[in-house]
Order: sequence, then structure tokens, then C-alpha cells
Amino acid sequence: MKDIPDDLRINGERLLARLSEMARIGATPKGGVSRLALTDEDKAARDLFTKWCRAAGCTVTVDQVGNIFARRIGTQDDLASVFLGSHLDSQPTGGRFDGVYGVLAGLEVIETMNDRGISTKHPLEVVSWTSEEGARFSPAMVGSGVFAGVFELGYVLSRADKDGLTLRDELKRIGYAGEEPVGGRQVRAAFELHIEQGPILEAEKVTIGVVSGVQGLLWYDLVIKGQEAHAGPTPMQLRRDPVAGLSSIIQKIYILAEENAPHARVTFGDIKVEPGSRNTVPGRVTLAIDLRHPDPEVLDSMDRELRSIVESQCHPAGLTGKLEEVWYMPPVFFAPECISAIRGAVEGLGLPAMDIVSGAGHDALYLSKVAPTGMIFIPCRGGLSHNEGEYASPGDLIAGGNVLLRAVLEIADS
Amino acid sequence: MKDIPDDLRINGERLLARLSEMARIGATPKGGVSRLALTDEDKAARDLFTKWCRAAGCTVTVDQVGNIFARRIGTQDDLASVFLGSHLDSQPTGGRFDGVYGVLAGLEVIETMNDRGISTKHPLEVVSWTSEEGARFSPAMVGSGVFAGVFELGYVLSRADKDGLTLRDELKRIGYAGEEPVGGRQVRAAFELHIEQGPILEAEKVTIGVVSGVQGLLWYDLVIKGQEAHAGPTPMQLRRDPVAGLSSIIQKIYILAEENAPHARVTFGDIKVEPGSRNTVPGRVTLAIDLRHPDPEVLDSMDRELRSIVESQCHPAGLTGKLEEVWYMPPVFFAPECISAIRGAVEGLGLPAMDIVSGAGHDALYLSKVAPTGMIFIPCRGGLSHNEGEYASPGDLIAGGNVLLRAVLEIADS
Repeated sequence: MKDIPDDLRINGERLLARLSEMARIGATPKGGVSRLALTDEDKAARDLFTKWCRAAGCTVTVDQVGNIFARRIGTQDDLASVFLGSHLDSQPTGGRFDGVYGVLAGLEVIETMNDRGISTKHPLEVVSWTSEEGARFSPAMVGSGVFAGVFELGYVLSRADKDGLTLRDELKRIGYAGEEPVGGRQVRAAFELHIEQGPILEAEKVTIGVVSGVQGLLWYDLVIKGQEAHAGPTPMQLRRDPVAGLSSIIQKIYILAEENAPHARVTFGDIKVEPGSRNTVPGRVTLAIDLRHPDPEVLDSMDRELRSIVESQCHPAGLTGKLEEVWYMPPVFFAPECISAIRGAVEGLGLPAMDIVSGAGHDALYLSKVAPTGMIFIPCRGGLSHNEGEYASPGDLIAGGNVLLRAVLEIADS
Repeated sequence: MKDIPDDLRINGERLLARLSEMARIGATPKGGVSRLALTDEDKAARDLFTKWCRAAGCTVTVDQVGNIFARRIGTQDDLASVFLGSHLDSQPTGGRFDGVYGVLAGLEVIETMNDRGISTKHPLEVVSWTSEEGARFSPAMVGSGVFAGVFELGYVLSRADKDGLTLRDELKRIGYAGEEPVGGRQVRAAFELHIEQGPILEAEKVTIGVVSGVQGLLWYDLVIKGQEAHAGPTPMQLRRDPVAGLSSIIQKIYILAEENAPHARVTFGDIKVEPGSRNTVPGRVTLAIDLRHPDPEVLDSMDRELRSIVESQCHPAGLTGKLEEVWYMPPVFFAPECISAIRGAVEGLGLPAMDIVSGAGHDALYLSKVAPTGMIFIPCRGGLSHNEGEYASPGDLIAGGNVLLRAVLEIADS
């Protein structure tokens, strides 16, 4: 690898100015953005991004699922590219940084190299992945997903929004149905810079999170059936009350999380009670369970414990508990060489940093299936994201860009 | 009081035959009935009932809220009447006995006296109270409620069903908007015979429940607020998770019920979770709480305990718990002379009986505000009611009628 000049820094003002300019597209009254995938706002953001990329000397290519690749040549240009990217789409009432920060910081890395006359052995590509949020078209992360072979192209193109408009037609309508097959590109490594979307870095007063991987995740629907009964006449001991099973199961799963602290997470995002009448002992309750842990073995053991909790709390109470697995995503570990490049960048810059596990899915999650991948987090205020109030400080935004610059330089010349 | 002949029994076959004939009106495929208040089915049931009453020599009067009074003269006919009644309306998919049993058993008592040439000092009136169920027009028990001064007549007549049809107009449409003012009648005592709508008598293998009163009831909405957060990135110890508060509050309220066993009842009929997304720690949950006890002092102390549970589980967890009282109905104690008359009847007949507290509201609840009132329960299979599968055995149905006959004779001559 080449020596990285000690004083090498991105142009922070340019990055912040571009973030501000991009935030005008789909701006909401409360200071956020609404830029759902493949809407007119997404098109405007794509147009502005590609205009900037071309002005920076990049060659812009769009593939059949609408992923945009802005390529800067390498000194050995037939080598695989280093990817720097994230996404331009947002939640319906999203923030100014989720996704777009990683894309524009990628472009800023290239602009900085241009300014300083720095070339790299491997070509670089700033990538904007299509429809990461999954807010308009479900599932999420389909651009990177098709690229990584997780989803079939035809399946993704046929996904419809709630008005019945398909991703295929909307891609054509906004002019981003490219011709290039999805996934053909050789990737040396992929980096994604992102706000944390959680409160840890802020709480730890740390500027950079070196992301070691992504939590594994198990989603279940737990259905507990008992016996509907009148609230007044039915004595407590003659009831088969699914709410009694529900509350003790929830309590025991919280204890299970404590036993696997600090990395285990359990969330009960929804509860449905049937028939849902104030003076009727319910006959049936449904609980949404979200279980996460970065270690696959621990996640497996939590899964076994969970099943045994359900059985032990339901059966003796005359209830039936049926646990249906809705989704399993195994934990992901990012590539040691990428993590090491990020750590080196952090050290070179003297920034306060810590290792962190990503709790949310990102395009990097799918990229890691086909290329050495790394992620960099910066703090966001109050852990707030998917929210118009999402905020990251200028200093942290610039620091993240500098880490990305150095990590990319390290890998792109190796 | 006069001596009651040892062999005096109702005509059980006639009672069962009339129950069967009445059950044809609004019969459902699964063996129940659908006879919502003031529908064509309710009209047909009223027509059949009043035809039978007139044939039994009674004078039929209808008041302005549609309550039907079928009067048999007393030997001192200016004395206050003894009421025997219940209601003819049903739940949308109700059973063959809830309400109608008490009305037709009342008529059977009069038929039996006619057959045996028995007269009473006080006149008797079989009463069918309007819209007890509250399933079509809310609130419930409005016929007896207006009679007892609990509701204003104008308020009740203006109540509309979900199609906007008012109780006033529907009463006129089916020809049961009477002219008599509601509530003017003098009442010596009121008896209501009813299926238990709970599982206790069946579990105790007892034929007759001597109802001592009606449980007091407290309804609340508990709103617990925390902080919405992403399920993945937010560490457990940084969450303010209202589901954690919810589950521990529910558990502690179940313990409160145990501490006040066997009469305390607690029911959580509904839970609402917001925003209700699988991978979001909820920001807010709402819990419907139904608390019952027959002793007003115990109910008061449970209310205080409940408030302290909410405070102790919410505050330290960074949650706010707001308990809103939706309804309070104090416990009701039935009249000692009516209870004593029912006990005497049970003893005279040598029936297995026990004291029982009613968990459900009944017309007798409101009647007790203006007259000495008593209630008799018979078992129903599996405690099932408000259900097409509602079932009471012929033997129990007849036994209940015999108890009613003797209790009424006791009071009507005293």
C-alpha cells in the first residue's frame, strides 16, 4: 500500500453542502425527507447524484434493477473495483442522513482524490443501491440483494407498491431501468458508511463505530390459545387465560435477554388480543417476537430456550402455545481485512472509536455475501432514525468521511 | 303466608315446549338464536309471549320504553305487584335460554297457579324488559334501567344502532311503543330466574344458585408510554419499553387477584400496541382492565393496590402509566327477604343449592334499586353463554321454575 499523507482530509464543507442540497429533494416541514424508492423525488436525487459523479470524472452505469455505479478508473483498471456506497431512498418520513450520507461521502472520497491527484491501483465505484428501505416496495434491500444473488431479478421487478405499481414500471418511468445485468461486476471490497441508527456511540461518547458484523435475527409469531369466557362469572381458577401465559412468557424472555447481555436483544413489537372485548377473557393472543444476537451459537441457544419457555408456561396452564418462525437471518461477520483497514484509518486520524455490532440490516449485509465488506458508523442524536428528527453533527459526518477515505485508500492499493 | 302444597310443581313439559317454540324465532343453524332487540324477531317473540299471557288470563300493558307487563290479579289487588321477569332479546349469535328462560318460567308460574286454582294476595306481573343485551343499542339493560331511574327515557329512546335507527323509531315500527309512563308501578318484590352464564354450579354439581348479589366492577384503560426505538440497534438497558411495564403490571395484578381469592376477578380483555411494528420497540401500549369483587371495601382496596402497582412498575423504568377509570359499578346485595324466600323454596324441594355471586349484570341489578329483589341461577353447560352452544338441562330448567314458583308464592302472600 502507498503512504497516506498525514494531512489528507476530505473537503468537509463540500460534503455538508451536498448533504444539504440533497435534503431539499423531498424535504418535509419538520426538517426530514420523504424520498420513497422510485418516486419523482428518488429520480431527482438520482439525477443530481449522477450529475455530480459525471462532473467528478466518473463513468455512470445503471443496472437492470436500477443500481447506479459511478466508476473512477484505477491504475490497474482491469482489477476488481472497491465499492463505496449506500442508498438514496428514504422512509416516508425519514431523515437527512440515512443512506444518502454513505453515497455522498463515497463521492466526496473520489472528489478528494481528484483534488489531491491521488490514484488507486483498483478502480473505485460509488454505488447507490435501489430501494434499500423497503418502505414502498417490500422486501427491503432489493438492489444489493439481487446484486448478491439473494433475490431473483424477476421477483424484485414484479414487486408492487400499495397502489399496484410495480418496481419494474416505476424504474422505467423514472428512467433508471438500466441495461446492464445485475451482479456481474467484480468487487475487490465494499465499504458502507452510515449513521448508527442506535444510541450506543452517543452514549459512549465515541465518534466512530468499527462495525464487526450484523446481529443475527429470529422473528416469530407466537399464538397462545386458551378459552374465551365471561369476565364476571368465570372464577380465576377455572379460566384458561392466554393473557396469563403471555405475560409470564414475556417476562421470562426478558430474563433470557439479561442472561445473554449485553448483545442479546428481544423486542415485542405487536400484540393482538381476540376477541378483544373489555369484559371477555380472551380466547387467543398473538405476540410478535424479535430476537437478536451477533453470535450464531448464542442465537441458537436462545431459540431453544424460547421454545422451552413457551412450552413450560402454556402446557401446565391449559394453554396451547404455537411458535411460528417468520424469518431467520444468521449473524454476519464483516471481513477482517476491511475491519482492519477501518481500524487503521481511525488510528491514523486519532479518533475515539469502538467496535460495534449493527442491529439493523444494510446493503453491506448482502454485499458481504459476495465481497469482503466493512461498515463504518457515526453517532446520531438520541439514536433517532427513520424519523424527520434524525441528526448527526457536522464534525462526526466529516470524521466518518475521513475514515472512509483512508480505509478505501488502504484496500484499493493492496 | 299460606301453606304451599308439598306436591306443587310447575308443568315442566309446557315450559320446555314453550322454550322450544320461542327458540324457533330467530333460530340459527348452530342451534342458537339471533333475536336482537326491536328487530322483526324480537317483535315475533313479544307477540307470541303476549298471546300466551292473554290466554293465561293476564292483562298486558306496554310502557313507553317497550317493557311488557302481564298482570295476574291478586286477592288484594291494590297492593304492589310481585315481578317475575327477564328479557326476550338475545345477542347476535346468542343462546336459547339467556333471558327468555326467566320470562317463560314466570309465565309458567302463573299457568301453574291457574291450573291449581291458587290465588295470591299481591298481584303478580310477568315482565319482559326491553333491550337487556345492549348488543344492538348501547348501553345494556335500558328497559329495567329507565324503570329504576338509572337512565332518562329520552336518552334511551334516542340511542341509535349502527345503521342509525333509533330505539324510539324501532319500538314504534314493531308496535311496542306503549303509552304507560315508565316506572310508575308499585313493586312488592322482583324475582329473576336465569342461567348462571358461568361454570361454578356445574363444577360444584349443584342445581340451584341462590344469588346473594352482583359483583362490583371497575373498568380502566391503562396507557403506558415509553420511547419508540429500533429493535436492532437499541441496547436493552437504554430502552424505555412499555411492554416490559405491561407484562410486570399484568403479573402483579394476577397476584392481587390471588390475594383476594376466591371472589376477586381480573380480566385483561384487550391490549393495543403502538405503532405495532414487528421490529420497533413500541412507544405506547393500552391495556383494558376489568376488576371485580362482591365486597365494596375489598374492591376499594384492590383499586388502591392497582394504582400503586402501576406507579411502582412504571416510574423506575422510565415509563409513564396513566390509569383512566372507564366505569365503576358498586357491588349490589339482594334483599334478605327474597334470598330467604328462595332458600326456603330450595329446602322445600330438597334441591342441592349454594350461594353464589352474579358476575354479570342483569335486569335484577337495576330492579334492586327500587324494590326488594332476588335472583335464582341454574347451571349451564361449560359456563357457556352469549353463544349458540348455550345449554341447560331439562331437569335443571324445571327445577329452577319450581324454585321460582315457591319463592314467589312466599312473598306474594306476605
